[in-house]
Amino acid sequence: MSAETDVKPDQGSLGQAMHRLVTELYPICRSITGNGLRETLRIVSRTIPLQLHEVPSGTRVLDWTVPKEWNIRDAWVKNSGGERVVDFQAHNLHVMNYSVPVRAKMSLGELKPHLYSLPEHPDWIPYRTSYYKEDWAFGLSHNQLLALEEDSYDVCIDASLADGSLTYGECLLAGETTDEVLISTHACHPSLANDNLSGIAVAAFLAQALSQLPRRYSYRFLFIPATIGSIAWLALNPDAAARVKHGLVLAGVGDAGCTTYKRSRRGNAEIDRAVEQVLKHSGARYQIEEFSPYGYDERQYCSPGFNLAVGCLSRTPFSRYPQYHTSADDLELVRAESLADSYTKCLQIFEVLERNRRYINLNPKGEPQLGKRGLYDSVGGRSDAKSFQLAMLWLLNLSDGGSDLLDIALRAGLPFGVVREAADALVRAGLFALARPVTE
Amino acid sequence: MSAETDVKPDQGSLGQAMHRLVTELYPICRSITGNGLRETLRIVSRTIPLQLHEVPSGTRVLDWTVPKEWNIRDAWVKNSGGERVVDFQAHNLHVMNYSVPVRAKMSLGELKPHLYSLPEHPDWIPYRTSYYKEDWAFGLSHNQLLALEEDSYDVCIDASLADGSLTYGECLLAGETTDEVLISTHACHPSLANDNLSGIAVAAFLAQALSQLPRRYSYRFLFIPATIGSIAWLALNPDAAARVKHGLVLAGVGDAGCTTYKRSRRGNAEIDRAVEQVLKHSGARYQIEEFSPYGYDERQYCSPGFNLAVGCLSRTPFSRYPQYHTSADDLELVRAESLADSYTKCLQIFEVLERNRRYINLNPKGEPQLGKRGLYDSVGGRSDAKSFQLAMLWLLNLSDGGSDLLDIALRAGLPFGVVREAADALVRAGLFALARPVTE
Amino acid sequence: MSAETDVKPDQGSLGQAMHRLVTELYPICRSITGNGLRETLRIVSRTIPLQLHEVPSGTRVLDWTVPKEWNIRDAWVKNSGGERVVDFQAHNLHVMNYSVPVRAKMSLGELKPHLYSLPEHPDWIPYRTSYYKEDWAFGLSHNQLLALEEDSYDVCIDASLADGSLTYGECLLAGETTDEVLISTHACHPSLANDNLSGIAVAAFLAQALSQLPRRYSYRFLFIPATIGSIAWLALNPDAAARVKHGLVLAGVGDAGCTTYKRSRRGNAEIDRAVEQVLKHSGARYQIEEFSPYGYDERQYCSPGFNLAVGCLSRTPFSRYPQYHTSADDLELVRAESLADSYTKCLQIFEVLERNRRYINLNPKGEPQLGKRGLYDSVGGRSDAKSFQLAMLWLLNLSDGGSDLLDIALRAGLPFGVVREAADALVRAGLFALARPVTE
Repeated sequence: MSAETDVKPDQGSLGQAMHRLVTELYPICRSITGNGLRETLRIVSRTIPLQLHEVPSGTRVLDWTVPKEWNIRDAWVKNSGGERVVDFQAHNLHVMNYSVPVRAKMSLGELKPHLYSLPEHPDWIPYRTSYYKEDWAFGLSHNQLLALEEDSYDVCIDASLADGSLTYGECLLAGETTDEVLISTHACHPSLANDNLSGIAVAAFLAQALSQLPRRYSYRFLFIPATIGSIAWLALNPDAAARVKHGLVLAGVGDAGCTTYKRSRRGNAEIDRAVEQVLKHSGARYQIEEFSPYGYDERQYCSPGFNLAVGCLSRTPFSRYPQYHTSADDLELVRAESLADSYTKCLQIFEVLERNRRYINLNPKGEPQLGKRGLYDSVGGRSDAKSFQLAMLWLLNLSDGGSDLLDIALRAGLPFGVVREAADALVRAGLFALARPVTE
Repeated sequence: MSAETDVKPDQGSLGQAMHRLVTELYPICRSITGNGLRETLRIVSRTIPLQLHEVPSGTRVLDWTVPKEWNIRDAWVKNSGGERVVDFQAHNLHVMNYSVPVRAKMSLGELKPHLYSLPEHPDWIPYRTSYYKEDWAFGLSHNQLLALEEDSYDVCIDASLADGSLTYGECLLAGETTDEVLISTHACHPSLANDNLSGIAVAAFLAQALSQLPRRYSYRFLFIPATIGSIAWLALNPDAAARVKHGLVLAGVGDAGCTTYKRSRRGNAEIDRAVEQVLKHSGARYQIEEFSPYGYDERQYCSPGFNLAVGCLSRTPFSRYPQYHTSADDLELVRAESLADSYTKCLQIFEVLERNRRYINLNPKGEPQLGKRGLYDSVGGRSDAKSFQLAMLWLLNLSDGGSDLLDIALRAGLPFGVVREAADALVRAGLFALARPVTE
Repeated sequence: MSAETDVKPDQGSLGQAMHRLVTELYPICRSITGNGLRETLRIVSRTIPLQLHEVPSGTRVLDWTVPKEWNIRDAWVKNSGGERVVDFQAHNLHVMNYSVPVRAKMSLGELKPHLYSLPEHPDWIPYRTSYYKEDWAFGLSHNQLLALEEDSYDVCIDASLADGSLTYGECLLAGETTDEVLISTHACHPSLANDNLSGIAVAAFLAQALSQLPRRYSYRFLFIPATIGSIAWLALNPDAAARVKHGLVLAGVGDAGCTTYKRSRRGNAEIDRAVEQVLKHSGARYQIEEFSPYGYDERQYCSPGFNLAVGCLSRTPFSRYPQYHTSADDLELVRAESLADSYTKCLQIFEVLERNRRYINLNPKGEPQLGKRGLYDSVGGRSDAKSFQLAMLWLLNLSDGGSDLLDIALRAGLPFGVVREAADALVRAGLFALARPVTE
């Protein structure tokens, strides 16, 4: 199987394979620490070589401290008849993530302050967390809540919150240079399919594909708990952080919405222009949004002390679809074809980054005679200019050291591939030279 | 009565109080010099401490010379029956402002070159002036003009044009710093209510309110005759002019139109951004226009040799409402609620200027852990980000020394007050420090 | 006859005179070399003094080599009945330009690879060239092609391709300074009226008009074969190229479409602003397009090694009208009034360039008192500001050394002529001084 077929396999089967991974991971109760997270990373490591790191509870990371490790075995609210009216086994969103252990009998009135629901979506269970304040609660559908009668309830959260460690997974694919492309996805959400698992699946399959391709850049994939994970990584890996030239946070890449890209804090970094170029020529609807400091782990990568060129790729942005952070973010919300499409766009983005170069036109006075080099139609007078020839003219005109291929493709409105091929032809014809050596 | 209640009194009563001042000033025949102007300033000085300056006729001020002082007692055109067919006592717009004295008998044919009217508004008297060329004329409604028959007319303008002085009023409210905010309004128009008196009333009440509030800046209020007044002030007060950091010309702030702001010549000065921020979050329609060198006294403040950061605030811009410079610019055109709204917006603008600062994020690597400082919800997962938390995230992300609170509020699309409160919270938490000392 | 009447003659008769020149030149079979080109330039030289240059075949010019000279006397395809079914005498587009000589008998099947037509316009003959690859072919209407029967055809192209020279015409009108305005038009197309002859006619009449006017700039008119001609000129005249401060390529300036301007590669050069200013105030529709490296000889002038401030003026841009490069680009497509309008707009553009200057306001503090200098209405209060007075205010406000008259006219939205007259008035009043001497 050649590298070529790895890059562009049948999208149908690829999407289905990613959806199968999402399906396998879906039931696990993940959190920002604990065995659910470890099991998830171990399953991912069947697809790609993943190094698991453990950061002990109490470790100072930037302004934060790694919290105690949380593990949960079971949880329920039983009525006086012994029936589980709220049951962690039925859905792990029934327990507020990081709930402290509890075992008590209480009236409905005592219980209610520990229950939360979504009146506007009465069949859905909301997702809540309390990582940094010790508390406990149960989530349930609003219909479930309304059905609760006055009774004596047996309440149990069989969990532990104790010193342990925070786990994250890392896969580094070394390239010709030590300049890095960072792909980061959070892996800390329990049974939420689009917000979490879609990013894990696409990132894993991207790493698998890239591992078989020649790479100018090194690629670092991070599967981390949100916020504390990226903060821990940044704190513990300052040298690697300094090598990041481009980066993408992947999150919510499996729903049916169009692709959305949120620019890096820099706003017009190479990654921002590369994504814009790919989306512009994708033939599909897309939206590009300005940076804002609210969202996923780009918040940390783009904090002013790092200011990395990291944007965020998603489909419908977080919180703008009703199923977000509820039990309705399930296996039906995530579609195989959306996963495959997100995957393909990412590979195209990496291709642009890999191939983007700055060239110098060695013959800047007048156009060189392309025809004698076999690069131009010998019959003149036709009114249709071919895009390959247009690309050469744009390249010759703008390659004075100030613009790279991506700049030129964006200005010319041409696909990057055509511009790159035209640049290759000009190099072969001796008309173009790389402005800088490949390895800096 | 606390400062707080001074700033935001009941808008209804405040608007009515300003309208009463407009009503009191309306009958006076003002001009760029003379007793009408002095009387106006004396009435204003009942509301605020106003220093009256007299600049003698003949004084050279920049490229100009202070003209002779003009005073008028009476004026009429009587028909042969002794009836006043044009009567200064009925409306002071009946005489061209700065008309030289005249006492003559003449035919209608001899009189007509000295009459002007508005055919398109046959019931309105137009406003005309001839400050710098000695001439005389009567304004009258077009219907009045049409009704004049061949007759021998007795024409009288009982006025004097003689050496005297130009008067202007000044109110300086010293602040913590000698940096100044300049508020300038013209006070030279006779019975015109919106174009003149509305600005006087709002400026007077703003000075009264600010006098009772703590002030970082010093505030200088000028009540001056248009053009020659600002030129005289600039000529005679170069040191004060150099201290002006921000300024507003107030004119036409009482009609029912939406608020209009004309930017300073600098275009993006702090005053320009402050006004834009306030109008954007006002919930009301508004328009912002680019600087042009035609208009009110911003023409002088923004001349290239001064180039002060002074914009112009009005409602419907001058000359774009039909009543402009006619007897229809009367007490009904000016509305109490518009005066109150203009006043409130100005106070909000000053508040932004007072509170705008540049901070440094002392913890620029990653987000600081806001939760442990009580600044962030402990329960995660909700999809609604509160504007206070958003404001903190924007502040932390952008406070690297390059942006002030106003820049951040504009970029984040958040009200200034929320951003300022969030900055205060970050200062209290030890996460933020002022980028520069309060007093420069 | 005064210079004034030369500049603005009756547009009707002028347009007709240009159309007569187009009509006279139309039948000649031009190419990038040869006697058709020479004859064309000789006819143009009856209107203006034109220096003809001959560049020998084989001369290296930048990356190119001047080709052999091509001349054609006759060409036909005769059927077995001796009838000319394709006849160069009927239309010179019937032969592919630069076809090598051929004399042969052949079947329809053998002939067909050498025939081209336009199925979508079955009555039109397409225009084709093969300058740099030796080949031969006949163009014919699609209906002609369909009517050809199996037969033995007598095929003849009585042409020569041999060492000779490339001819171009040059007319330099010296001005007060050696800074140059370049006007370049291609002269190499055979019977195509808009794409070629319209530019020749307008350029010739512009040169005639300018020759009789005072000129600050020197004007250089080039009548050249496309691409190879501008490349030869640039190669052989580096000093003149360095003196070009502004330039226009004229092409396709005679059809009924609105005026289109394609910006120079610099994008905001003085020529770009001058054309925008003229078109904006022309009262007619127009379009302005960004630079692209595909088009006419601006491709060469704007190559990065020269980067001259040369834009391209046309009406409907090349290839966007169906008649482009076909026999339907004929004498009816070109209209006298469009030629006259293009001519007039060019003269207005030159007028802007000639008159554009940078002034310094000598009285920058406050407005100077224009009234005492007779430059301002003595009667105030009117709401209509005249454009001349507005122009003075804009000039006074912006002439601090950073803006020239063109900048100010564009910002003020006023016609250039009004701004220039206002500047002259300010100079006469002693308020303005030229920022730089006329001759640099």
